[in-house]
Amino acid sequence: MRIVVLAGGVGAARFLLGVRRLDAEVTAIVNTADDLTLHGLRICPDLDSVMYTLGGGADAERGWGRAEESWTVSRELAAHDAEAPWFSLGDKDIATHLMRTRMLDAGYGLSDVTAALCRRWEPGVRLLPMSDDRVETHVVADFDDGQRAVHFQEWWVRHRAEPEARRFVFTGAADAKPGPGVLEAIGSADAVLIAPSNPVVSVAPILAVPGIREALREGPAPVVGVSPIIGGAVVRGMADRCLSTLDVEVSAAGVGGLYGARSEEGVLDGWLIDEGDSAEIPGVTVRSRPLWMTDPEATEAMAREALDIAEVAA
Amino acid sequence: MRIVVLAGGVGAARFLLGVRRLDAEVTAIVNTADDLTLHGLRICPDLDSVMYTLGGGADAERGWGRAEESWTVSRELAAHDAEAPWFSLGDKDIATHLMRTRMLDAGYGLSDVTAALCRRWEPGVRLLPMSDDRVETHVVADFDDGQRAVHFQEWWVRHRAEPEARRFVFTGAADAKPGPGVLEAIGSADAVLIAPSNPVVSVAPILAVPGIREALREGPAPVVGVSPIIGGAVVRGMADRCLSTLDVEVSAAGVGGLYGARSEEGVLDGWLIDEGDSAEIPGVTVRSRPLWMTDPEATEAMAREALDIAEVAA
Repeated sequence: MRIVVLAGGVGAARFLLGVRRLDAEVTAIVNTADDLTLHGLRICPDLDSVMYTLGGGADAERGWGRAEESWTVSRELAAHDAEAPWFSLGDKDIATHLMRTRMLDAGYGLSDVTAALCRRWEPGVRLLPMSDDRVETHVVADFDDGQRAVHFQEWWVRHRAEPEARRFVFTGAADAKPGPGVLEAIGSADAVLIAPSNPVVSVAPILAVPGIREALREGPAPVVGVSPIIGGAVVRGMADRCLSTLDVEVSAAGVGGLYGARSEEGVLDGWLIDEGDSAEIPGVTVRSRPLWMTDPEATEAMAREALDIAEVAA
Repeated sequence: MRIVVLAGGVGAARFLLGVRRLDAEVTAIVNTADDLTLHGLRICPDLDSVMYTLGGGADAERGWGRAEESWTVSRELAAHDAEAPWFSLGDKDIATHLMRTRMLDAGYGLSDVTAALCRRWEPGVRLLPMSDDRVETHVVADFDDGQRAVHFQEWWVRHRAEPEARRFVFTGAADAKPGPGVLEAIGSADAVLIAPSNPVVSVAPILAVPGIREALREGPAPVVGVSPIIGGAVVRGMADRCLSTLDVEVSAAGVGGLYGARSEEGVLDGWLIDEGDSAEIPGVTVRSRPLWMTDPEATEAMAREALDIAEVAA
């Protein structure tokens, strides 16, 4: 069986730890619109979160970056007053970025680079960047000194998503092509799952790459989303700040409505929500159950339920 | 008083610790032909050795790199089987290379980059790259599988200078221009000293940049060399392997003859050699004394003696 998962960062990584336990060939199509360049290094936070987590190298407590990390390079850069001390780069992490940057500079695509990095990490899941082209989420937000656009990471990490966001712009998305293998994976999937990632800045950029949304809508595989809302609140981070910008209610119904029914203009056939939530979306099979990803076993059960909604046996 | 020092790496760094104690404005013109690019990082071993040593950040025992260094990034790169594990890059050191590479990529010249790095290190000496243009020492050597040319660092560090060298080629030197300030520094110097660096691969590349040799020969300042030979042997490394390639005797007389008298086709007015050596070079004032650079005080005395040969009072 072939399963495709649309994935953001940390939440998707945990979800994939469960999906990977299924007897299936799993392909994750990963958001790259959070990617940024710092100190000349190309950094792909979502790809790395997924790769490190599935490869057993992630720091589970911190939620991002490598386990048993050190910060020598960053301290040295700060001693030079280099910019962007707000984005922490660990020493182990920097090795990844060095390899990536060097391969990109040599002309390889991000998907080739990701495959090369995965030869070491052996994530047990095929990781495909949503696109090899550069797509960047910019946030138009109200800062103290006025309204301006910044890179998503600057708003999210540096300013902790506090300045009110007015708009999210997926710069470059309109001209981006789906990454190598992305459309083929969707076209040959038995089921497509949407991980419980941030719908506005993790999943939406994937859907904004021309061709991906169409492939999901027109493909043979049922599409089932897993809600990132538990008991009416976002589980992680500041995703509620993103939803409110779009005037979308922070609820399972709100996020489900944002994705929309495939029978209408959306992508969903099914929508798995937390037992404490409710949603009714015409044309979408909604089912509820506990959605806490406490361990890979519990997460596997969640994934099985999602496949059950898709009427696919795992 | 203004003193210019032609400098290689570690030996020159130690020499400058002594010169810096003089009541003088010191400018070091540093060899950049050892520079290399690894993992996409631009590395300038001689500039860094001088900068770290004078800035109090060098590892005195190891002889290169930073004190209290760690090797996390390199270990990670090796876990990916990245190439060139023969050249060790410490974590602190990598921060330097990241800043340098980024500034070079942004279009700054190596002299600007060096000045920026020195704002942190405050070496107390003005450091000028011999050229902002790319000059690289390549070594034509007899390897087990035949004769081929490799980057100097590959021959020196990876192969420990064991394959017999047939020729040293300063690739790019013929088209290189002296770095900003280099000719001005020589032209306005009261004395020029040649540090006890490797004459073949540290000093010769500086002299190979068109304009520098001429500025020394035609300038007003006396030029005094400090011999890198002590008691008939090279003090450090494998410099004897380089001299034998040029059929130059490993002796104070041999190296002095290589530099040559300014009154002939060379650059020297004076030649300071170790008390255990002897040399006679027509047209050059030769004087001998102990040349062990045991501490900055001893080295200062050496530098004073060199200035005395130049008939300049420090």
